[in-house]
Formats: sequence, C-alpha cells, structure tokens
Amino acid sequence: MKLMRVGESGREVPAVMTSDGRVLDCSTLCHDFDRAFFGAGGIADLKGRIEATELPELDMARRRIGAPLREPQKIVCVGLNYVTHARESGQAIPDEPVLFMKSPGTLVGPNDTVLIPKSSAKTDWEVELAVVIGKRASYLSSPSEALSYVAGDAISNDVSEREFQLERGGQWDKGKSCDTFNPLGPWLVSADEVPDPQELEMSLSVNGVQRQHDSTKSMIFSVDYVLWYISQFMVLEAGDVVNTGTPAGVSLGHDDVAYLKSGDVMELEVSGLGRQRQVVAQG
Amino acid sequence: MKLMRVGESGREVPAVMTSDGRVLDCSTLCHDFDRAFFGAGGIADLKGRIEATELPELDMARRRIGAPLREPQKIVCVGLNYVTHARESGQAIPDEPVLFMKSPGTLVGPNDTVLIPKSSAKTDWEVELAVVIGKRASYLSSPSEALSYVAGDAISNDVSEREFQLERGGQWDKGKSCDTFNPLGPWLVSADEVPDPQELEMSLSVNGVQRQHDSTKSMIFSVDYVLWYISQFMVLEAGDVVNTGTPAGVSLGHDDVAYLKSGDVMELEVSGLGRQRQVVAQG
Repeated sequence: MKLMRVGESGREVPAVMTSDGRVLDCSTLCHDFDRAFFGAGGIADLKGRIEATELPELDMARRRIGAPLREPQKIVCVGLNYVTHARESGQAIPDEPVLFMKSPGTLVGPNDTVLIPKSSAKTDWEVELAVVIGKRASYLSSPSEALSYVAGDAISNDVSEREFQLERGGQWDKGKSCDTFNPLGPWLVSADEVPDPQELEMSLSVNGVQRQHDSTKSMIFSVDYVLWYISQFMVLEAGDVVNTGTPAGVSLGHDDVAYLKSGDVMELEVSGLGRQRQVVAQG
Repeated sequence: MKLMRVGESGREVPAVMTSDGRVLDCSTLCHDFDRAFFGAGGIADLKGRIEATELPELDMARRRIGAPLREPQKIVCVGLNYVTHARESGQAIPDEPVLFMKSPGTLVGPNDTVLIPKSSAKTDWEVELAVVIGKRASYLSSPSEALSYVAGDAISNDVSEREFQLERGGQWDKGKSCDTFNPLGPWLVSADEVPDPQELEMSLSVNGVQRQHDSTKSMIFSVDYVLWYISQFMVLEAGDVVNTGTPAGVSLGHDDVAYLKSGDVMELEVSGLGRQRQVVAQG
C-alpha cells in the first residue's frame, strides 16, 4: 500500500495510491497518518477497510503532495553510513552508527520548495532511504526483530547546511534543522511491499546532472542493525522517521561541485519509492 | 501565573497554582498546555478567564505532577553555556552557542523516577533553566526582541549519559535522549512573573550533598542571545523547550564524584521556579 497526504500544508488529507495509479481519499477511514494511526496498527486496518469501501478519487492535477505522515515525535538520522560518503567528507569510517536529529518541523512534501537559509553559503543535498516506525521500540533484543517494527519506507532528502553543521561550533543538528530541510515522500510504501530494504537503488541529480547514485546495499550499518542500535539509546515511537544515511556525491568535499543556489532543481529517486523534485529558493 | 499539569502520565489535566498555593483544575477553560495553547496567546487568555471563573480545587495529596506542558515539537539545548562547566568537561569555551537536541519523549514530571539506561555506567545530572517559547520565532532581528517570544520559565534536569554522549561515535544526542532524561517543572512560571531570567539562583544536590550551585547570571550567552541565535538556524515553535545550559558540578570530569546509581536522589531548585526531587532507578 502507498500512503500519501494530499492538500495544502497543514491541511492535508490522508490518501492511498492504488496499483493503477489512482489516488483515493481515505479521510473517512482514518484521521491522519500520525503516531496514533501507526501505533494502533493502522496500516493493516486500513488495508482491510479500503477493499470493502468505495472511496472518492482525488483529481491530482495541481494538487500538492505533502509529506506522507503527520509531524512525528522525532526524526533520528544516521551519519556517515556509506563508506564513500564518509571518505568524501574527510571523516573516519564509523565503528558504530553516528546519530543526530532533525527538527520534525523540517518535514515538507516531496516537491515543495527548499529554502536556502539566510546567510547560508553551503546548502547541500542528501538522498536517503527513510524508514518510518510502526510500533514503539525500546531495547530491541536483536537486529533480527527490528524490521518487524517498520511501518514503511520513503525517499528522504536530508538537506544540510555544511557551514552550520561543521564550522559553527560543535554539533551537527545546527545545520540539519533549517526550515524545509526534509522533503519526504511522495509515498510511504508499506513494509510488506518493500521486499528487501538493502536492495534499493537511489539517485539524486541537480539541474539534470546526476550527483548521487548507489544502492542501499552499500550501507555500513543495515536498516535492521540501525533500528536495533537506536533503540538501545532512546525510545522510538510509532510514526518516528529514521533517515538511514546518504552515499557519496554531495557538494561537501568537492570544490568542483557547487552548493545549492536559488533556482536549482533537485530530483531524487529510490527504486519502488517514487520520485521527488524540489526547486531551490532563497529563504 | 504558575501552570501545572496534574495526573498520571499521559492523562494529565491542565491546572494553575494560585498565589496562596492552591491548585485549580482549569481543564474547562483550555484543552492542554500545548503548541496550540501557547501559539494562540493562551497564557494571557487563561489569566483573564481564571479571574472570572470558579474553578475546582485539586487535592494534591498523592497526585502526580507532570511536565508543565504537553509534548513539544522539539527540545533544543545549549551546551557549555557556563565557563565553569566547559572547563570541568575539558572543553573549549565556545565562541558561539553549541546546540543539540533531546527527544521530546524524554519529558517527565519533576518528581518522576529517572531511569539509568541499560548498559549505562555514566548517567549524570544537569540543573538548568528551561525557557518555553510563546510564539513562533524565525530569524529574530536582534536579541533585544527575543524575550517577548518567551511564554515562561521552568526547572529542567538535562540528564545525560556521558559514555553515550562522548565515547560512542560522534554526536551528543545519543547520550541525551534516553527515556526519562528530561524532568521538567513543577511549574511553568509565566514570563511576566520572572523579573530577570539572568538573576536566578540554581542548585542541585545528590543524596543531600550539594553538587551544583550558581546563578543564571554566569551564562556565557544570555537567554535573549540564545533565542535570537537559535532562530537563525531553525524555526522555534510555540511550546518548544530550550534548555539553556548547566553550570559546574556534574560528575563528568570529577573522578571523586560518582555517577548516578539506583536509589540515588536528585534535588533541584531554581529561585522562583520551585523544586524537583527524583529517585534514580535501573532502567
């Protein structure tokens, strides 16, 4: 099942995309795709009820697609989870996952404008696989049970301001939480329709030039390991987003690849999870 | 006005404490102390309506006090904001505020049990002044306007696991977001009743031995500067919590001061903002 949220920012309605590409309004079946929905087993419930219900189709011409879930409690991110990206960033290959956070307020739709922060000179891109948590996870006993805690998968752009992140005193969060810095979607693809999260091809282009292209099989720490690991340090709640890291090909570390400027276009794709397209503007 | 939330975790009702120490249930006047409440100018509104309404008094014997606001969008923290604490931590005095985040799920009541994470050996305390945001703040033009964005002030214990924070690969968030790691309250004291946030005496004791004792006047970056600064990097939403840093006297950096163990008792006080008392238990 492909979950979507459609409508103006803050007024999205929950919807599902059918296998033949129609978008059905399911706001009569559930309030929203949020912590309560995921935590109550909403995906399985919705799947059953959709088949038994005649739902109105949404005309998608000129309609905005929002992030496919309502503001989560938190967004946890894994840093340096691809050898190639750690190397280009001039950082050591991590012995265990590096974790940081983004403000949940950074979530925007997959095709929304991305704003360059005021006084920013180093706004950068990061295509990632995002996994969304399906039920509360704390101290998981082993990585082997972790994937049963996943509601679904989506494309994420972990937009980053490198000067704020690395040159302004200490912790990365400062360069990760700027307004509009986490396009997510277009869909949340339910976990049962993602056969293997470690076999997803991912790519990102800027102004039509491919900059990132790799597979989730190149992750240093696999999705199940990452979720098990995070759960040893904090409670993951239903509806939380985990950004699992980006491969090589960002601007950071490459003097010949410019940071983002107003008017640039980012296009992202992850196999089976759809596409994103963001125009960049000055904030 | 002193805002409180009273009742079992997840089922708290909003209340106010009167100047003569009675606690009045104000759930007929507002839904909860959350983003919507603060963002709509709820404090001023509630103040007017309380005077015109007969509210039921709550018998506080054996009642739990919750955190004085419902789960915020985010908790932003300032690191190393007192010279004495930066020195004892073996860290440089920062040129600009160090920022990191705690999961909003860490919030608990001021007298709730604090859990030592499994496999933790270095769970530590940090008494802090927390400020709660009263209205959305983005790119504030100067520190001089920042205090008008504050709804109120509270005591915060920024509990920290030092091995997770400093020895487990990279970013501090990993040691800051463990379950129960942010006791807050007992009250949110509205900003009009805190004459000067830089003149608050703060202290923390463990098992009756005073470990921290300083004043907010010792901050490197004052509250107004910190809020202006954060707003240049991210949007602060109404109801967000900002932990403004801790003075010297934690266990980190002092071989003769033990980290927390099960059964320890932390007591915190900030002048005008009340007291906290937490018993420590193994998670």
